[in-house]
Amino acid sequence: MPASPIRKLVPFAEAAKAKGKKVHHLNIGQPDIETPAVVLDKMRNLDRKVIEYSNSEGFMSYRMGLAKYYKDNGIQLNVEDIMITTGGSEALIFGFQTCLNPGDELIIPEPFYANYNGFAVMSGVKIVPVTATIDDGFALPPVEAFEAMITPKTKGILICNPGNPTGYLYSQAELEKLRDIVLKHDLYLFADEVYREFCYDGAKPFSVMNLAGIDNNVILVDSVSKRYSMCGARIGALISRNKEVMAAALKFGQARLSPPTFGQLASEAALNTPAEYFTAVTAEYVHRRDVLVDGLNAIPGVVCPKPSGAFYCIAELPVDNAERFCQWMLEEFDFNGQTVMMAPAAGFYATPGAGANQVRLAYVLEIAALKNAVECLKVALTVYPGKLEIVSENSANHS
Amino acid sequence: MPASPIRKLVPFAEAAKAKGKKVHHLNIGQPDIETPAVVLDKMRNLDRKVIEYSNSEGFMSYRMGLAKYYKDNGIQLNVEDIMITTGGSEALIFGFQTCLNPGDELIIPEPFYANYNGFAVMSGVKIVPVTATIDDGFALPPVEAFEAMITPKTKGILICNPGNPTGYLYSQAELEKLRDIVLKHDLYLFADEVYREFCYDGAKPFSVMNLAGIDNNVILVDSVSKRYSMCGARIGALISRNKEVMAAALKFGQARLSPPTFGQLASEAALNTPAEYFTAVTAEYVHRRDVLVDGLNAIPGVVCPKPSGAFYCIAELPVDNAERFCQWMLEEFDFNGQTVMMAPAAGFYATPGAGANQVRLAYVLEIAALKNAVECLKVALTVYPGKLEIVSENSANHS
Repeated sequence: MPASPIRKLVPFAEAAKAKGKKVHHLNIGQPDIETPAVVLDKMRNLDRKVIEYSNSEGFMSYRMGLAKYYKDNGIQLNVEDIMITTGGSEALIFGFQTCLNPGDELIIPEPFYANYNGFAVMSGVKIVPVTATIDDGFALPPVEAFEAMITPKTKGILICNPGNPTGYLYSQAELEKLRDIVLKHDLYLFADEVYREFCYDGAKPFSVMNLAGIDNNVILVDSVSKRYSMCGARIGALISRNKEVMAAALKFGQARLSPPTFGQLASEAALNTPAEYFTAVTAEYVHRRDVLVDGLNAIPGVVCPKPSGAFYCIAELPVDNAERFCQWMLEEFDFNGQTVMMAPAAGFYATPGAGANQVRLAYVLEIAALKNAVECLKVALTVYPGKLEIVSENSANHS
Repeated sequence: MPASPIRKLVPFAEAAKAKGKKVHHLNIGQPDIETPAVVLDKMRNLDRKVIEYSNSEGFMSYRMGLAKYYKDNGIQLNVEDIMITTGGSEALIFGFQTCLNPGDELIIPEPFYANYNGFAVMSGVKIVPVTATIDDGFALPPVEAFEAMITPKTKGILICNPGNPTGYLYSQAELEKLRDIVLKHDLYLFADEVYREFCYDGAKPFSVMNLAGIDNNVILVDSVSKRYSMCGARIGALISRNKEVMAAALKFGQARLSPPTFGQLASEAALNTPAEYFTAVTAEYVHRRDVLVDGLNAIPGVVCPKPSGAFYCIAELPVDNAERFCQWMLEEFDFNGQTVMMAPAAGFYATPGAGANQVRLAYVLEIAALKNAVECLKVALTVYPGKLEIVSENSANHS
């Protein structure tokens, strides 16, 4: 299994810190936002004496609570359509193992969340990328690009919406194009919608569960990790109206016995998170996004489409090679004792060479730290030995 | 993936309860013992504001605590030899996926824990059973029986010690025989030692980690589930001194991000469980075992070797077919409004037809309930239409 592109840089970050540098971590998706108080209170008032297994499909009370959550979000589901998993990761693994056979092909618009590679390896599935471009702000590639990659071995398409690592939010029209492809070729449509709550500027997420006519094709993957800033709870969900898929997935669920009990208790409590929590969190992320993305686009030669969702963005940098630059930032550079750790975007592409001068940045730091990070990056790009000549009119095109 | 033998009976148990019958559940391994107070107190004093991911290999403080736990149990390990997993289930899945390739063969003495089948399916591994017999009290089959099953595709042997479903505790001498086979054929030796704390009558468990000369072959699977009666925490460990195995397993760990944070906090607290907790729990299990096993062996025609560990036993019943009998107990029978749910043992054998008149019983109920359950079973065996003629001298041979 390939090493994650972020992890390769970890030793350099550790070395930088050992030298006394302050490293701003824009490389990871661990939010600093506090977990809702209703969750922490629930754990502090734990009223159980035996921490037992739950059902393999999860606690019924939590599944019922989730069905109401989805209804409140405009998605009609029955409890039987919902299976609780150990994080969104397990939901994807179960989805792949249930719907795909070794050797099958799965199309994913790239750049995509690098861990999909690991889940594909575990299931013997071959990922076939369709490239989304920074020039289009990472919009859905044209239907023809998908059609060109479909072979008799193609069994599904996987999207992440809003997207990690791009922050792009697919429109209903884009999703309907996907629906038509899925119907025409009888494919599964896997959708990772774990960033549903993080949509900005009035944008509303459209769920694949509301695409008409493909109930048996759609597999939704969800997670509480980012929604409630409780990545450590390891609670997700596999959701489908396809009864055969759910029955088969449950067998994998039974083999691993049950999802975590503590995490389910916490997640059920999280359903009572007040609306103000999300209002505040969304406002904070919008502020952070604007500081980071506007700051990046103000640096000569940097191009960063402004994302409508999640808390990531991809920026193209005027450098020879983003991985080399990221390593150099940690090893060689500092500005007032500070530097920035970013994720080289090449690791989010399956096509060799793609994204070589792009980085992914997560805006999971406070405003002051983000401003310092942008300042660092700006200075770094003036002194990096592998910087590229800048054609000045490029810089504003995509902001 | 095959359905678990226990689950097939669940609808019948539900129907029996719906009719008002009291069903004594001897079919499952969910202990009724309370989780240690130090664990519940830890959760009630939760001092975190963000429930973050841990490292993929688990919290360092917990791994260090575990290393000390093993040292206290006579097993010398470095922190690097220990990776925290989401239950023992994930440790086995990672172990299989790391060490075995699709098509490889894994020898397991049968009867064995039925979920091993699921983990093998997930990894494309073929389980090859070597049969342990009730006449030998489920001792390790002779070396020749293993040798007869070894082919060029054989890559490992898996044992559970003390054993689920047999309760048999392998001696050091038996384990050394396994070591010799493993060395001779260069196999992995996977050992599931999650019942380590549950050894009775002065018996001491001997860990595969203390077998000399096969450090690179041994993969230990552990779990807090039964030890601290916290199955729902979903925390286990994959342990090996083979550095390549640990490095490869970590990649699977990274793909699923991290084991549960709440469960790790609870498990680290559990390391401080006072010795009296285990003394009391062991005394309780010994009492339960004696009530159940002595009670069973006092029933004409029933044979049940007395286990030295875990909290299961396998009994041979004087019936035409144990699965039919178990279903009949739920559907047709009651004694004073009570009946018993047991796990037909055939599901713990991979050899077709093996164990057809055996059941697995878990002594995870209070003494009074166990006594009622034995009484029920005794009466049921006098009236079951498919009961067998009993040859009287058989009943005492194996108690």
